[in-house]
Amino acid sequence: MTSSRSSTLTFAPEINAARWFNTDQPLRLQDLRGQVVMLHAFQMLCPGCVTYGIPQASKVATLYRDQPLQVIGLHTVFEHHQVMNADALQVFLREYRIGFPVAIDQPVEIGPIPATMQRYQLQGTPSVVLIDKQGYLRLHHFGPMEDLQLGDQLGRLLAEA
Amino acid sequence: MTSSRSSTLTFAPEINAARWFNTDQPLRLQDLRGQVVMLHAFQMLCPGCVTYGIPQASKVATLYRDQPLQVIGLHTVFEHHQVMNADALQVFLREYRIGFPVAIDQPVEIGPIPATMQRYQLQGTPSVVLIDKQGYLRLHHFGPMEDLQLGDQLGRLLAEA
Amino acid sequence: MTSSRSSTLTFAPEINAARWFNTDQPLRLQDLRGQVVMLHAFQMLCPGCVTYGIPQASKVATLYRDQPLQVIGLHTVFEHHQVMNADALQVFLREYRIGFPVAIDQPVEIGPIPATMQRYQLQGTPSVVLIDKQGYLRLHHFGPMEDLQLGDQLGRLLAEA
Amino acid sequence: MTSSRSSTLTFAPEINAARWFNTDQPLRLQDLRGQVVMLHAFQMLCPGCVTYGIPQASKVATLYRDQPLQVIGLHTVFEHHQVMNADALQVFLREYRIGFPVAIDQPVEIGPIPATMQRYQLQGTPSVVLIDKQGYLRLHHFGPMEDLQLGDQLGRLLAEA
Repeated sequence: MTSSRSSTLTFAPEINAARWFNTDQPLRLQDLRGQVVMLHAFQMLCPGCVTYGIPQASKVATLYRDQPLQVIGLHTVFEHHQVMNADALQVFLREYRIGFPVAIDQPVEIGPIPATMQRYQLQGTPSVVLIDKQGYLRLHHFGPMEDLQLGDQLGRLLAEA
Repeated sequence: MTSSRSSTLTFAPEINAARWFNTDQPLRLQDLRGQVVMLHAFQMLCPGCVTYGIPQASKVATLYRDQPLQVIGLHTVFEHHQVMNADALQVFLREYRIGFPVAIDQPVEIGPIPATMQRYQLQGTPSVVLIDKQGYLRLHHFGPMEDLQLGDQLGRLLAEA
Repeated sequence: MTSSRSSTLTFAPEINAARWFNTDQPLRLQDLRGQVVMLHAFQMLCPGCVTYGIPQASKVATLYRDQPLQVIGLHTVFEHHQVMNADALQVFLREYRIGFPVAIDQPVEIGPIPATMQRYQLQGTPSVVLIDKQGYLRLHHFGPMEDLQLGDQLGRLLAEA
Repeated sequence: MTSSRSSTLTFAPEINAARWFNTDQPLRLQDLRGQVVMLHAFQMLCPGCVTYGIPQASKVATLYRDQPLQVIGLHTVFEHHQVMNADALQVFLREYRIGFPVAIDQPVEIGPIPATMQRYQLQGTPSVVLIDKQGYLRLHHFGPMEDLQLGDQLGRLLAEA
């Protein structure tokens, strides 16, 4: 399997969002204690995200809808910022019928990498980040991830007190 | 099978393009006599296009590269014009590694449906249009199309004198 | 594309069957003049046949049911003869809901390769053989074959007088 | 999700095998304490087993090879016994490159349902049974099962002491 728990756990930094979709209120990780959080970092024009990542995140959101699990999309634009803007994302979310909450990662003044992507040190898109019920970072995965492996990690985290 | 030859054939109207990608020169159907032409009408944020239509068009372009067949993409934007603009399309073509020539269908002054889409009376995206070696329209297909059926039609048209 | 018409055509040899399924009468190629014939050679315990070949043959039989095309399965057992016997094949055809006619290729006295497989010089399973309306051999294909390519060949042969 | 832990756990009955493949010694559940056991019940001529169940079991065996998890195939023949015999199964396992241990469920004197299938009250094939590290039955699933859901259950059971 691709993940392991490090001996020293790191607290998951807060999401820094320029805008939220599919939620009335901005979500804060600190309000989600007691739930497992699955962050799905994507870009709307990233083929691997459209082909694998987003369908997987949608499937998780559906299959786990009755469990203490929150799926959050994070639009981490680090290239082609002008065309992957908020208006374009809004159309994308509607056309692809994405129903879970999605945050636009906050652009920064210097450099192309947005704020949350920097904090989490994500390598690219698609990436999956899992945060346990106490708010600790438990998995970073860049690239396609087997459903079996993702399910395994979710099951373990959900089984924790 | 989904197509049939009408008793009276219609001549394929010319493509009215605002801009071309992946070609040094604008393509004109009248210069393509002697070749079968497959027009693939799509929108870059149309899920059915991204999932089925574009991969199919790319496969045709590759498998038939040594035959008298020209694949042409036609970006027929009829909704969300602002976000599916030329800059966004350019990024899309690069990210999805689309190598065949693509035309942006010419917007018109009144109404959302661009010029070539109107001329061809396309119902939506993805659509496949096949034009025979003499320039006649031979197939209109809206929605996903079986590879077997598309191959069948291409084989028949290529077998014609 | 994977096939080409040889300058000198070979007449398709007759099928030598030990037994037929899914047909009241044994089929003879000489009675099928005017129809294109698609022979699908398979073994019931060949993974490539079960995964690719048989679903493709079934799809062809369904899509072309109103056209002059006859799909024929040919159970060319050349290994493990004892377990891929007629009783086992009958169960297989029922469980996999194979509806097109299937012949058991006639075993021979010497050697493992059955009679029709020898006549057609097939290299293994799955193999596709296409026979034109006049009874000539037009395509041999061993291994997985793209739907686009198979459809192309079928369309060409069906378009012939 | 499709499973839940019953308030009263049932001990997993022992496998009653007529013969084993892919193992030097017969496996006994009582010797596998400390490991999670995944029983995959199948029939070699069951399309759902060949298409979904067996590839899934093989993927689990590969992905979890370094973890305390034992995948065991159980050939629960309850129809067409004559053609799904031991010789046929041996060919099947080789052709499909199945590497995990497989037991032939012991036929009984009266009726078509073999012994272990009866003990476990399996409804048909494919079925997945999960047994925890202490030997208790934790999941019965008949029919296709999402990789996400199977991974979830495996992760939970592996996380237990």
